[in-house]
Amino acid sequence: RINSDRLWDSIMEMAKIGPGVAGGNNRQTLTDSDKQGRELFKSWCDQAGLVMGVDQMGTMFMTRAGTDPEALPVYVGSHLDTQPTGGKYDGVLGVLSGLEVVRSLNDLGIKTKHPIVVTNWTNEEGARFAPAMLASGVFAGVHTLDYAYGRKDLEGATFGDELKRIGWVGDEKVGARKMHAYFEYHIEQGPILEAENKQIGVVTHCQGLWWLEFTLTGREAHTGSTPMNMRVNAGLAMARILEMVQTVAMENQPGAVGGVGQVKFSPNSRNVLPGTVIFTVDIRSPDQAKLDGMRARIEKEAPKICEALGVKCAVEAVGHFDPVTFDPTLVGRVRTAAEKLGYSHMNIISGAGHDACWAAKVAPTTMVMCPCVGGLSHNEAEDISKEWAAAGADVLFHAVVETAGI
Amino acid sequence: RINSDRLWDSIMEMAKIGPGVAGGNNRQTLTDSDKQGRELFKSWCDQAGLVMGVDQMGTMFMTRAGTDPEALPVYVGSHLDTQPTGGKYDGVLGVLSGLEVVRSLNDLGIKTKHPIVVTNWTNEEGARFAPAMLASGVFAGVHTLDYAYGRKDLEGATFGDELKRIGWVGDEKVGARKMHAYFEYHIEQGPILEAENKQIGVVTHCQGLWWLEFTLTGREAHTGSTPMNMRVNAGLAMARILEMVQTVAMENQPGAVGGVGQVKFSPNSRNVLPGTVIFTVDIRSPDQAKLDGMRARIEKEAPKICEALGVKCAVEAVGHFDPVTFDPTLVGRVRTAAEKLGYSHMNIISGAGHDACWAAKVAPTTMVMCPCVGGLSHNEAEDISKEWAAAGADVLFHAVVETAGI
Ligand SMILES: NC(=O)NCCC(=O)O
Ligand SMILES: NC(=O)NCCC(=O)O
Repeated sequence: RINSDRLWDSIMEMAKIGPGVAGGNNRQTLTDSDKQGRELFKSWCDQAGLVMGVDQMGTMFMTRAGTDPEALPVYVGSHLDTQPTGGKYDGVLGVLSGLEVVRSLNDLGIKTKHPIVVTNWTNEEGARFAPAMLASGVFAGVHTLDYAYGRKDLEGATFGDELKRIGWVGDEKVGARKMHAYFEYHIEQGPILEAENKQIGVVTHCQGLWWLEFTLTGREAHTGSTPMNMRVNAGLAMARILEMVQTVAMENQPGAVGGVGQVKFSPNSRNVLPGTVIFTVDIRSPDQAKLDGMRARIEKEAPKICEALGVKCAVEAVGHFDPVTFDPTLVGRVRTAAEKLGYSHMNIISGAGHDACWAAKVAPTTMVMCPCVGGLSHNEAEDISKEWAAAGADVLFHAVVETAGI
Repeated sequence: RINSDRLWDSIMEMAKIGPGVAGGNNRQTLTDSDKQGRELFKSWCDQAGLVMGVDQMGTMFMTRAGTDPEALPVYVGSHLDTQPTGGKYDGVLGVLSGLEVVRSLNDLGIKTKHPIVVTNWTNEEGARFAPAMLASGVFAGVHTLDYAYGRKDLEGATFGDELKRIGWVGDEKVGARKMHAYFEYHIEQGPILEAENKQIGVVTHCQGLWWLEFTLTGREAHTGSTPMNMRVNAGLAMARILEMVQTVAMENQPGAVGGVGQVKFSPNSRNVLPGTVIFTVDIRSPDQAKLDGMRARIEKEAPKICEALGVKCAVEAVGHFDPVTFDPTLVGRVRTAAEKLGYSHMNIISGAGHDACWAAKVAPTTMVMCPCVGGLSHNEAEDISKEWAAAGADVLFHAVVETAGI
């Protein structure tokens, strides 16, 4: 078993960087805090004898050599960036459990046949730069490097400039590495494992996603002196689209979600009907037909809603991945490890997207999950126990070592 | 008649300060641009021989002496601050036409019995610091100075600190001045005069307003891994309240409006259901019973909408004025002036709030209006013609001089 105290202490150390306002973290990608987090992680990797490679997306690959010079590495990782009001565990647990696997191997003096590479993917969250899982997306050939470099945050800063600013542009061509396998350990971010009282989620699938960014153009006008029948009210159109997305998601139950997390009114003044409203609809389902059906329905209904109000409606897909089926052999190894270690477990579908979803395009991939309190994530109050963290890390350890070979 | 070229040139000069992005202005109150605008206005007033007084709210009172030392002054003014994406005429037309009245009197060598005071009220727009018409509200005894100084913009800067920062805290006690009468000339900001093909609006009333600021508290959670039935979705509650406000306004036709110009999601991340949504409902009617009825209905329905979603709902009134009836004698003088000058005119109710609404509490008050293209205001595309501007200024000139006495 891994060293649960050391794992927990490292998580708590990392949580000191980019503290939030309510006990969690604000360590958004490519900020000064992200830079500091990378440096801390690197210092730990140095101590563990790992050798660093960094690619042009700033993704960190920390290698523990294997005994077979021909063998492709087993990758294990997640991300150290957080939401603006994120938790201490989302992503961090996976990266530092990867490090803990290596530290435990060092403690035990075990050498593996395949190298093991602990990975910190850049911009998993997509909070600052859409889409989420950007670096792993470029790695898997889903996005070009130019596309990624050009992504802008709400202030207009680009990913490329910010990566340069924090000094983490690496020289490795993105996606040049070949993987024997990829493992990612993550908190569930949903309520199922806790409700079912299981220690381990054996992740068989990940649901697919569309992020649909709407730009509604109305007519900026005075809220007082513009009669109701002369308004071209983009705010009202937005409200109706939100309600419609809710209806579409409810009509696709079970196995679908839909909602809106980001809304921007312009000029956002109390006595000005907005000229522009920009917002992003997030819809997901593990069922490809449902997912694409929801998208088609929303893209059909929204323009009608807008037309009735005279509002101009533009939609752009700013994030997408299809539902993923993880590698059955690796999934089996996770299940076997949980059984061998005596941890209660169940099959689960990931509700959130993960770098594993893109890695699955280029390598046999799977995930391990542990529960989180109340299913809460993307919230500073996100919480897990040390025991929960350790159980998943134990399972990860066994599955990784089995795959890397001794 | 006034000098229409000089009036127009001054408006165009002022429009160079705090330029917008689309031909209009962003000269929000207590910004560096506001400071610059004040300096330009002062230099013109100095040239016209006016004597400046500034009160503790930063309102500028520029006096042309009268011949009767006992006579209270006739005030004529409006505001030089703008919306973030405001027009060149909203407010500016009224202040600079007041100046033009004085310049024309100077040209003609006419002395009036009552002094004439050209006034630039601070923070009429309320865009940066709610509520609107803040300085005239303190002047009329509706708000305390402390309340005004403590108002905050979206970045948390206070009115008091910002007024000090730009160096325009005057020494006059706010509201100490007594007025013989107050006149305000303004663009209509609505479509009626243009549609009815009238040059002059004889403003008999102003509709009343409530600004209701809602703070909805949901549960911040992941948009992907949080099942629909576990969401506490403050964004959805906001959408339903917007629709309800629209319904309430439509059910109160004619003579009522309702809408939302400002919305803020927190943390405003694409894959986080908002923990908090703050937005302001703007409702207006010239009919007191309708206005208060709409407010009561919205404050009754909104909590029910929220309760059904488990969302916490708090409401604060951050702006309010009752419907206003302007002084019949002054209204009559405006009408007579328009007739004498041969300008087409009609009675009109102001859809927007104006400093005149608060001045009406402490002095006989009325307004003059000219049309604006398409009824458009609070939009950089706001537009009027030189002839429209001049007609209203002529009417203002005659009504003011008649009231000030020769
Ligand atoms: N795990 C996680 O929160 N990833 C962010 C991408 C998503 O929204 O699913
Ligand atoms: N005239 C004007 O736009 N005033 C701002 C206050 C309001 O919203 O009516």
